[in-house]
This record gives sequence, C-alpha cells and structure tokens, in this order.
Amino acid sequence: MSSAFGTLFRISTFGESHGQAIGLIIDGCPPGLALNESDIQPLLDRRRPGQSALTTGRKEGDRVTILSGVENGRTLGTPIALVVYNADQRPGDYGEMAALFRPSHADFTYHAKYGIRAASGGGRASARETIASVAAGAVAEKILRACYGVEIVAWVAAVGDIDCPPPDMATISRELVDATDVRCPDQTSAAAMRAVIGAAKEEKDSVGGIIACVVRGVAAGWGEPVYDKLEAKLAQAMLAIPASKGFEIGSGFAGSRLRGSQHNDPFINKNGRIGTATNYSGGVQGGISNGEMVYFRVAFKPTATIGREQRTVDAAGNEAILAAKGRHDPCVAPRAVPIVEALTALTLVDLAMRQEARRAFFMAIPE
Amino acid sequence: MSSAFGTLFRISTFGESHGQAIGLIIDGCPPGLALNESDIQPLLDRRRPGQSALTTGRKEGDRVTILSGVENGRTLGTPIALVVYNADQRPGDYGEMAALFRPSHADFTYHAKYGIRAASGGGRASARETIASVAAGAVAEKILRACYGVEIVAWVAAVGDIDCPPPDMATISRELVDATDVRCPDQTSAAAMRAVIGAAKEEKDSVGGIIACVVRGVAAGWGEPVYDKLEAKLAQAMLAIPASKGFEIGSGFAGSRLRGSQHNDPFINKNGRIGTATNYSGGVQGGISNGEMVYFRVAFKPTATIGREQRTVDAAGNEAILAAKGRHDPCVAPRAVPIVEALTALTLVDLAMRQEARRAFFMAIPE
Amino acid sequence: MSSAFGTLFRISTFGESHGQAIGLIIDGCPPGLALNESDIQPLLDRRRPGQSALTTGRKEGDRVTILSGVENGRTLGTPIALVVYNADQRPGDYGEMAALFRPSHADFTYHAKYGIRAASGGGRASARETIASVAAGAVAEKILRACYGVEIVAWVAAVGDIDCPPPDMATISRELVDATDVRCPDQTSAAAMRAVIGAAKEEKDSVGGIIACVVRGVAAGWGEPVYDKLEAKLAQAMLAIPASKGFEIGSGFAGSRLRGSQHNDPFINKNGRIGTATNYSGGVQGGISNGEMVYFRVAFKPTATIGREQRTVDAAGNEAILAAKGRHDPCVAPRAVPIVEALTALTLVDLAMRQEARRAFFMAIPE
Amino acid sequence: MSSAFGTLFRISTFGESHGQAIGLIIDGCPPGLALNESDIQPLLDRRRPGQSALTTGRKEGDRVTILSGVENGRTLGTPIALVVYNADQRPGDYGEMAALFRPSHADFTYHAKYGIRAASGGGRASARETIASVAAGAVAEKILRACYGVEIVAWVAAVGDIDCPPPDMATISRELVDATDVRCPDQTSAAAMRAVIGAAKEEKDSVGGIIACVVRGVAAGWGEPVYDKLEAKLAQAMLAIPASKGFEIGSGFAGSRLRGSQHNDPFINKNGRIGTATNYSGGVQGGISNGEMVYFRVAFKPTATIGREQRTVDAAGNEAILAAKGRHDPCVAPRAVPIVEALTALTLVDLAMRQEARRAFFMAIPE
Repeated sequence: MSSAFGTLFRISTFGESHGQAIGLIIDGCPPGLALNESDIQPLLDRRRPGQSALTTGRKEGDRVTILSGVENGRTLGTPIALVVYNADQRPGDYGEMAALFRPSHADFTYHAKYGIRAASGGGRASARETIASVAAGAVAEKILRACYGVEIVAWVAAVGDIDCPPPDMATISRELVDATDVRCPDQTSAAAMRAVIGAAKEEKDSVGGIIACVVRGVAAGWGEPVYDKLEAKLAQAMLAIPASKGFEIGSGFAGSRLRGSQHNDPFINKNGRIGTATNYSGGVQGGISNGEMVYFRVAFKPTATIGREQRTVDAAGNEAILAAKGRHDPCVAPRAVPIVEALTALTLVDLAMRQEARRAFFMAIPE
Repeated sequence: MSSAFGTLFRISTFGESHGQAIGLIIDGCPPGLALNESDIQPLLDRRRPGQSALTTGRKEGDRVTILSGVENGRTLGTPIALVVYNADQRPGDYGEMAALFRPSHADFTYHAKYGIRAASGGGRASARETIASVAAGAVAEKILRACYGVEIVAWVAAVGDIDCPPPDMATISRELVDATDVRCPDQTSAAAMRAVIGAAKEEKDSVGGIIACVVRGVAAGWGEPVYDKLEAKLAQAMLAIPASKGFEIGSGFAGSRLRGSQHNDPFINKNGRIGTATNYSGGVQGGISNGEMVYFRVAFKPTATIGREQRTVDAAGNEAILAAKGRHDPCVAPRAVPIVEALTALTLVDLAMRQEARRAFFMAIPE
Repeated sequence: MSSAFGTLFRISTFGESHGQAIGLIIDGCPPGLALNESDIQPLLDRRRPGQSALTTGRKEGDRVTILSGVENGRTLGTPIALVVYNADQRPGDYGEMAALFRPSHADFTYHAKYGIRAASGGGRASARETIASVAAGAVAEKILRACYGVEIVAWVAAVGDIDCPPPDMATISRELVDATDVRCPDQTSAAAMRAVIGAAKEEKDSVGGIIACVVRGVAAGWGEPVYDKLEAKLAQAMLAIPASKGFEIGSGFAGSRLRGSQHNDPFINKNGRIGTATNYSGGVQGGISNGEMVYFRVAFKPTATIGREQRTVDAAGNEAILAAKGRHDPCVAPRAVPIVEALTALTLVDLAMRQEARRAFFMAIPE
Repeated sequence: MSSAFGTLFRISTFGESHGQAIGLIIDGCPPGLALNESDIQPLLDRRRPGQSALTTGRKEGDRVTILSGVENGRTLGTPIALVVYNADQRPGDYGEMAALFRPSHADFTYHAKYGIRAASGGGRASARETIASVAAGAVAEKILRACYGVEIVAWVAAVGDIDCPPPDMATISRELVDATDVRCPDQTSAAAMRAVIGAAKEEKDSVGGIIACVVRGVAAGWGEPVYDKLEAKLAQAMLAIPASKGFEIGSGFAGSRLRGSQHNDPFINKNGRIGTATNYSGGVQGGISNGEMVYFRVAFKPTATIGREQRTVDAAGNEAILAAKGRHDPCVAPRAVPIVEALTALTLVDLAMRQEARRAFFMAIPE
C-alpha cells in the first residue's frame, strides 16, 4: 500500500510511464461539488512537457476522463476515477538504456526492490506518474477554494546559482508566475535562469532548482499532531515528488542560524483576529496552521537523465558507458510548479477535512 | 488519528507534558525479540534534560516500564505498551504563561484547533512528548541492528553560525558524538558551539541548530513509492519533531545548485555488489534505498520559549508583554540527536518490514 | 497492526490476561467532552466476572485510570490512555494447562502464529482483553448519547435451547436487562436459562448463547459503502469478540427464507420523517442507516474451557487428557452483554464521525 | 475512505452501475506473478447476469482490461488497475423509479447520506459494483493457489425453505457446483430450488437464500487478533456484499445451542501435523486459522426490487405505489457464489501477507 495518500480525502494512483494509462481514484470527495474535466485539464496542461524550448520536446497531449463519481456535473460522494490514456508511447526511445542502470535514476533500486521492472520509460519512477497527483490536486484545490478561498501559488525561486528575489507573497499569482516560461515571477531572474538552463541543455547536461510556494487562506487549526503535523505531511508530499531532495517551511535552514528573539513571531491583534507580526514560522506552530500564510520551499536535483556519457553498470555488474537518448527537461523546476501546488492542495484538503470532522463533533457536544 | 506512525510496525502515543504519564503502544513488533527495559532506558537518558549546563535544569528522571507484549524477556508479537510516569511535575512554573500565548509556541494553535488546551506545560506540544518516540525507537533500532546490522548515528552539524566540518560517515559513532556535551564530533566546533549557546543563555535568548544523521547497513530496496518513499517518510518523521523546520537528503538544497554531470552518482561494481562511486543521492533513488549510506540533515529553529520580554496577546486578543519563566534549553540541537535517531529507526523498521512482506511473497511464487 | 479499530475514533489496545495491565489509547476523541473515570468504571463492573453464581468466582476488581487526554474533567482532543492494572494475578492456576493445547481455545493457533505465547492465562486470547473494548466503548457511548441521544441495549436472547421471546425494542432498557443475573429481560426465560447454565456447571460443562442488541437514535446516513458498510463494520466488531461465531442483522438468516414481498420494508411518512412500516432491514439499507432502530444478533459458542476431561495434544504432538482447572463462566452470554454494547458504540461513533466529516464539507460547498 | 479493503493487498474500487466503467486498483500485489486478463475474465463471466433463466435477462458482456502494473504477462509489484467499461447502459429503464424510493433498496439511504444520488441504476449500491471485488478476487485467488494451494468453493446451501444437504467438504469443487444453474451441488435440492425461484419469478416476487463456503489449504496462523481476526475480517467482507444479512463460521448460530463437551474440537496428531478431530470451530480459533478447513455461511435476503406493487414515498415524503420495471434476479444466491468466493480470497490473501511479513522478521531475528 504505497501509492495512496490521505486519510479522509484519499487518493490511490496507478500507471507506468509507457503503459496504457495513468490514473487514480479519489475516495472521500464530498458530494455536491460541481466538477467536470475542464476543472482538471488546464492543470494537466500546465504540467505537460513540450510547453517551451526549456522542456522536453515530447507532446504528451494528455486528456483526462472522469470514469465515475460524477453525474450531471456534480460529485456523488462516491469514488471518482480519473484516467489519462497514453497517446504518445515511444518505448523504442529507451531501448539501449533498458540494459544499463541510469545513474541517479530509479532503475537499479526498482530492480533491487521488485526483482522486475518496466522495460522502458521508468515505469512508476517516471515524472509521468505525477499526472495522477496533478489531476487529483485539481479537485482538492477546487474544494479548498470553494470552501475557504484558499489560493496556492508556487514559483521557481532558484535555478542553479540564480535566485529569484522574494516576491510579495500577498499578491503573487499564477498569472504572474506563468508570464515567463521558467515560471519565475521576476523578469530579470527569469532571463538569467533561462540562460543557465539553455547552457546546460547545450552541453547535454542538466541543472537543479528550488520551488517556493505560498498558500493564502488557510484557516487556523489544520494539522494533526504529533505525526501528521501540517509541515510533516507537506514534507512527505514534497519528498514524494520525483527529483526532490529537500523541504523547508518558514525560515527553514536559514532560521537555524538565528536567535529566538529574532525568530519568534510576536502575536498581535489584527483587527480582531489574532495574528503574528512576522512569519518566520511559515504559517504553522506546533504542527498546526495559525491563520497566517503557509510558506515553504522544495529543492530539486538536476535531472538525472543527461545526454553526456556516464559510467554505470548493467544488472550483472559489468561496467559500461551510457549516453542517454530521448527527450528530457534540462531542468525540472518549471514543470514542477504545478506538481508542488497539486500536492499542497492534496495535503491541505485532507487536513482541513480531518479538522472539520473534529469541529463538527465538538460543536455538537452539549455543555 | 494523529498520534500514530507506521504501517506494519505501528506506534500510537499518548501523554501531556505535565500529565500523569507519557507512553505508547507498539503494534506489530515481531515475536521472539529479546527485550527488556534496559534496552530502552539508556536512550531515554540520552534524551533527558539536565544532562549538562547546556540543557534545562529540570531533572525528569524518567523510568520506562513495559506493561505488555513481553514475557520472560521475549516479545510475544502482541502489542507492547511502554509507559513513563511523570515524576517531576511542576505545573506552577508555567502559571503566568497560561493566560498568554507564547510567541512561536503552539499555545495559540492548540487553542484554535481544539477549543481547549492543557493548562500548563505545553501539553502534547511539549518536547516531553518525544519520550514516546525515543522509547519506541529503541525497540525499532534493536530489530534493525539484530536483523541487518543497521547503525544510526546523528550529530549536531551546526549551532547558529558554527558549522561542524563533515565527519567520516563510515566511522562516526555515538561514542564520538557523546564525547562533547553539544554532541558535535569535532572538538573545535564543539567548543565554538558551546560558546554560542552559552552567550544565548546568558542573554536570556536561544539559538537554532542543524542535526545531521547517517545510517549504515540499510539494504537496497526499502521505501514504498510513490507516496511512502523512504525520503518522504523520513521527511514526515523529522518534521514531526518539535521545532524542526527543514529536511534535506543527500545533496539537499545545495544539490539544486549543481549540474547533473556533477550530481549523478555513477554505478560501479563494489566487489560484486552494485554500488555508487559518490553519494549525492544520500542512499536513495526513486524513493528506494540503494544500499549506500542514507544521509540527511534536519534544521531546528531557536527554542521558542525565552526569558526575554516579548510582545504577545491573550485569548481575548489583548496585547501584553511576556517574559517566560521556567527551565528551557537555549538550544534544542544537542538533545534532539537521540530523537532524530529514534524517528529514523521507526521509519526504517516499518519500510523494512513492508519490503520483507513483499519479498516473502515473491519468493514464494512458483516460476 | 491488529489491535486497532476505527478510522476517526481509533482505539489501539494492549495487555495480556495475566500481565501487568490491560489498556488502550483512544486517538480522535473530540475535545471538550466531560469525562472522568466514573463514566467508565460502571461498564467495567458490568463486564466483571464474579457478579453472580453464574459467572466465574474470580474477583477482578478492575479499576480504570485515565492517564492522558483529559484535564479538569474535559477531554483535550489529544490521545486518551486508559489503563487497568491487574490486581488479581493467579498465574499458578493455569500451570498444568500451559503444556497442553486446550481444545477450541487459542493456545495452538497463537503458538502456530507467533512461535511463542504467553505462558499462562490465554494472553491476548483471554476474555480479559475485552476490558479494553468496554472501557473505550464507555467513552464512545457517552459521545453518541450526548450528540444524538443514542441508546444501545443488548440482552441474552438465548441460552442453549431456551429462547427469550422478542421484547419491545422501543422500550427495553439496561435496567430491565440487569434485573436478572442472566441478563434476559423475560423473567420466565431467565429462570429457564439459569437452570440450563446451572446444569452445565454442575456437570463441569458449558453452554452457548445468543445476544440480541437494539440501537435507538441512530441518524440516517451512517455507514460507508462499500466495504465499511454499517453492518460490515458491526459484523467485524462482533466477530472480534472472543467466542462469537455468528452475526445477523434485521431478519438475518431467517430472512433468507422469505419472499421479497414479505421482507421489503415499505417507506411511509412518519409525521414528516421518512421511515419504514416494518424493519426487516434492521435499520440499514445498502450499508447505511435509515433512521430506524438498528437490530442485530450475535451467536456465542459454549465456553471452551471446561472441567471435563478432554482429548488433546502437547506442542510435540503427543496425545494427552486435559481436565481444565481454574474459574470459568459456564456460559459467556450474560457477561458478553456489555461487551456487545461497547463494540456497538465503538463501531457507531466512528461511522458517525465519518459522516459528520462529509456533512461538514458538503454543507460548506457553495451552490 | 470507504471503497477500500485490505492492509497489504489493498483494493480501492470505483464505478456507478450505469456509469462509464467499474474498476479498481490493487496496491500491494507481489511482483513476478504471471497475470493477464484471461485469469480474471472467467470469474467475471461466472458473476455475469443472463447466464440462465434464473437470472436477469441483461447481457452485460463485461470485458476486463488491465491498465497498469503488468508487463509481458508478469506483475511489476506496482498498482494494478483493472477496468470494465459499461457496454450495456439502459438508464431509461429505471426512469419511473428515480423519483420514488424503492423499498429495502438503498435509494433513500444514499439520498440521506450524500444529499445526492445517481439518477438511475442504483449507483454504487447496485450489484454491478461487485464486478470490482470479483476481478480483484481473481488475482488474490491466483496468489493463494500458487503459494499455498488454497481452494475456495462456495455453493447455494438454501433457497427459501429448501436446504441442500451438507456436501463432502473435502472434495466439493466448482465444477460440481456449476453443474446446475442454481449452483447447488445436490441435484435433487437444485431442482426444488429451481422450482421455488421459478414460482417467485412467476409471481413477480423474489426469494432469499444462503451461500456456504469452504476453504481448503489455509495454513495455520492467518488472522490478526484482536480486531482483524480471520472471522472478523471475513464477516466484514461478507456483510459488504449487497443483500447479505448474516454470517456464521463453523457451528455458527446452531453451535450456540450446544454444550462445550459437544462443541470443543479435540486436538489430535494427524500424521505428524497437529489437527482437530472435529471442526465445529470452522477452521479458526481465537481469530487465527488452525490449519483445518475454513467453513462459513452467508445469508442473503430476497431481492429488494420486485415487479409487484409496493407502498413507498418520494423524496418529499408523498406516499405512492411503485411497481418496479427492469430486469432483476428473482434470487441473488446463484450469482452471489463467485462474489462470496472472491471476497474470501481478498480477505485471506491480505491476512496471509500480514502473517508472512511477521514470519519474515521473526525468522530473521538471531537467537
């Protein structure tokens, strides 16, 4: 039981990269929600490769279909199955690589774990698997927006050595982010990042990056201490994204350099609501949202599959040289933006439901 | 269902900081394991406050008792209940703070979430809650050591601006770590860290830090893609520790600055075993251990409770000044070392069991 | 993970029959509920052996202690640990039996499953384990009563060949049930049952029985199709009780003899509420409560441990004769009444919470 | 999270009766198992309506497709998605019924629970939903047969007042069961049952029945006390089948009439294996299999949808008369046979895996 996430809004996903389909079931979506494919497709399109010169040339053209759980445009409260059939299989592309373990890819570990692995395309370890999370995230996000006015916006905060200066978190929007193909809201940084990615691509190499994400509209009280704290489940979700290597919330690693007197967020009265004057906490305290903006960052390694020659071995342990063919993004960060947003939505909707379940009851208990 | 962790080796914990007891149940421990209180007590002692001038003056003197699941020094395979009764309650110490929300502590968020909170001592949000994880981790670690020879060693890698140079991960030991009271294996760094902590304490302030951890002996194949990847479950576990704000595995955030050609770990033949020449991956690829050392880091913010005066509000939103009394560590990092190790053990033993469950079956299937 | 039950109101239990303690954690109890030991103790007393000549002579004198999750008589929303220390250990009583597998008891199967078992008293397979369910059930029942006015009443419907005529389900009460020591609300049947049990006891034998249970006040909408239907989770809970061998809801096995035209429950308008004219369904349709009384029955086999000589074998397979010593009820039914009620409450409170979680959301979704 | 079942071999199902598709994901199937659609289709065909005059005239013609988790005829260890597209939609057939609540069907309870329901065909409450369980059960059964030689055989034990005499459980086979269209292995009883069903059909009525099931080859040690006992999980699974109203294992309700001296199963030495001389226990003791045949029975109510006029109400509570149109089996028992077998396989494979996970570890622990 490894391809499932969530307790009350629970998704279960399936699909190999080069198989017939990628899909998922959402078990626990509330009934009565207006939903159809057009709520989901735009987010898949944002995730899709081939959107610009920065991303792989593959045209996935993935179309989502709702197989169940929705009738006349309303959710029934029953399991919602979403499926994306694979229209653009090119198994041959990976032929040579099948015999050799691609360095820093999951070929070897799947082999070691399962004793068998998909012959081509990375199977479940491919970035194509994230289609399922993105599709589910679209539904989660719709609920969060409808019920709470939640807004989730992620952007590329760094590529290689280029850092984007912190934007205004209160106003940053997906429109602003999508204004550049690198999905960095600062035009100057975006240009520099584009150059870094282009240089890596030119040299048959790749480069890493950092995604930042802000969530506005999270109510105070989401997060389930002690093991399902908001930041703990977010961290799990983010580290489940292919190529991610780190997560930090609020002040993160930099905060560990500070003094408490600098780092503590004073509580203040914000027009009748209790809020904080600063937000080093990143919107969570003790694992529970405090009503401020939730803010976090995710580190992505450089794409493992590169065109350069690399040392590796085959399953028998014979050493060899591998130069990957095929179409791969020289930097995963731009396309990871909607994936980070989707997994954020999945994490939050589940914690929101768990808290509403509690509230429904403690409000019902007579004094 | 928030105080539980694990699928096959599942713990469920309880206890408020100033309540009668802290404890837990382990459901799923294999039968036949030699186990008694002396396997657990030393790790609790390592976690205990009052070990040096760097930590709080409280003497918790916590003694663990096994209430079930063990007979004649062997586990029965039935639930193991462990309890630590609270010998050193001082509820009065926190009297003044009860009315005011301590900045960057969980007072406000518990109030917002539950509508009620423990009147003193932080309740479940206190660091005392980690007693349960540490006790359970001792059992998990014993299994990992007995069955796989796994060794888990964490250390203080940074305090404020002082960084410990990377130690030799192949040989670093708990003995070396515990040689200094800051639990930094480098004597020079340890002295500098002690000075930083001492200065913060002197000024009624606190300071953050970073814990690093290495795990030797992890077999290839642990981790359950896609949502229960090894690094995803580790990240969840680490972000569930009080005061943690970040997690990174292998190259982490620094790795996002690199090129793929620098970062990829070439596979090589290591005397008949397939291994990697470098370990930027931190022992995991595609969410599954690859047989190399697992390496990660966790960021901790400065202790929220400080003696200095701070702005805050009460539950009615009235602004006030709070100067915390009581005994608190000026830096949580030294005492967080055994907590990080324990949660690492809990994460790994569960993933190991899930993989062994799979192996037991695929080995049983006839060709 | 086998000693846990529930999704949102989740219990995790521990304790061997002759060990130090029996106990449990409730994770997910709503905050703000008035609760103390006196809410729980009376139900444990009802379950306790030694209440009459019909039950074993052991005086367990079990006292429950709340270790966490409650402060000043109110639940905090955090895990509630309940423990009953074992005051009346008599491990010696079972000495002879330890070497031989008691027929139709769990000695052999525990041995086969775990490779080790508690040396005396049945370990987890003892009826003492039900203390945990009964204690947890007391909390569950308090919530159901406070929030919905739910009333759960079980009674002994049969002992051996003696059947109790169906009582008035709308008015049957625990007071009426407890008016006789066999817990049969019909005085004539009770007398006959007492004679049957007495005769079995006299002959060092035992006899089985059937418990019936009615639940009033269940709202329409509880039960989670398709695998966690109300009757499915009830069936699981009932078959988890030691010695139970069958479960039927509404018309049950007898209903399978009927025609649809006899068995269908016509919907009618009951003063503005939609109800049914008859209740062959037992209060559930399609796995979901329909607002009518929930009614079911549970079959219990004759107590396995009897004083008569029986054939059996030891662990080496050597055949032998065993005549059990010790104190055992000749009929489990009277004491199973509060156990059935408790597991009913645990099943219902969890399903109620799951439904409230759904309602909280679909009511929040704007049109 | 209601349409999922299992812990290690976990299924998640979806699909409305008249929707686009019915399907499921299996998460946790061991890798390396030979599997293709032809392993599954025959069991779907056995479940299919329209097999004889006794069943509904609908031709579902359901074809299963494997969408993921299998490559070159071997399972990959990744999630297996199975889908059956709906080839025979006739939503119009149910038009009149949509406005009225069909008595003893789930129309009203779905309405009460979700506030919305599928406009036609019963949605998730239709018997069509069992396609998913049957398809998953085919995979589970293949594993159980390959690894343990498990054989599961169910049959119609009663229809109305006609009881089939107990067959020889050691030899009864699916071939024998399928020799008659009522799936009763005794030819005389089968003829009488056919007459009873035919009479009900003639009178636009329906009739209930009982399914019995035996499982040969279950190893000792399956079942997870205390809440996931073998009989508890079986009971849950059986009561999750549409129209089921009761479950009993071994002696069941009849056993509650017996004395312990009659009912206890003496242990004996069976050629070196410890077994029992009788099997009133039905193959389980203390919730764990004992290596004997597992035997149980399931009661099914008469089909709720009948052609006769019945009283009912609409959603506004207005009373009305309903005479169902459409095609429905006058007795569900014959077609329920493969459903009972499938859910048995799903229950057992999960418990077997959980036990193997334990064994893998306790065998690995050094002395």
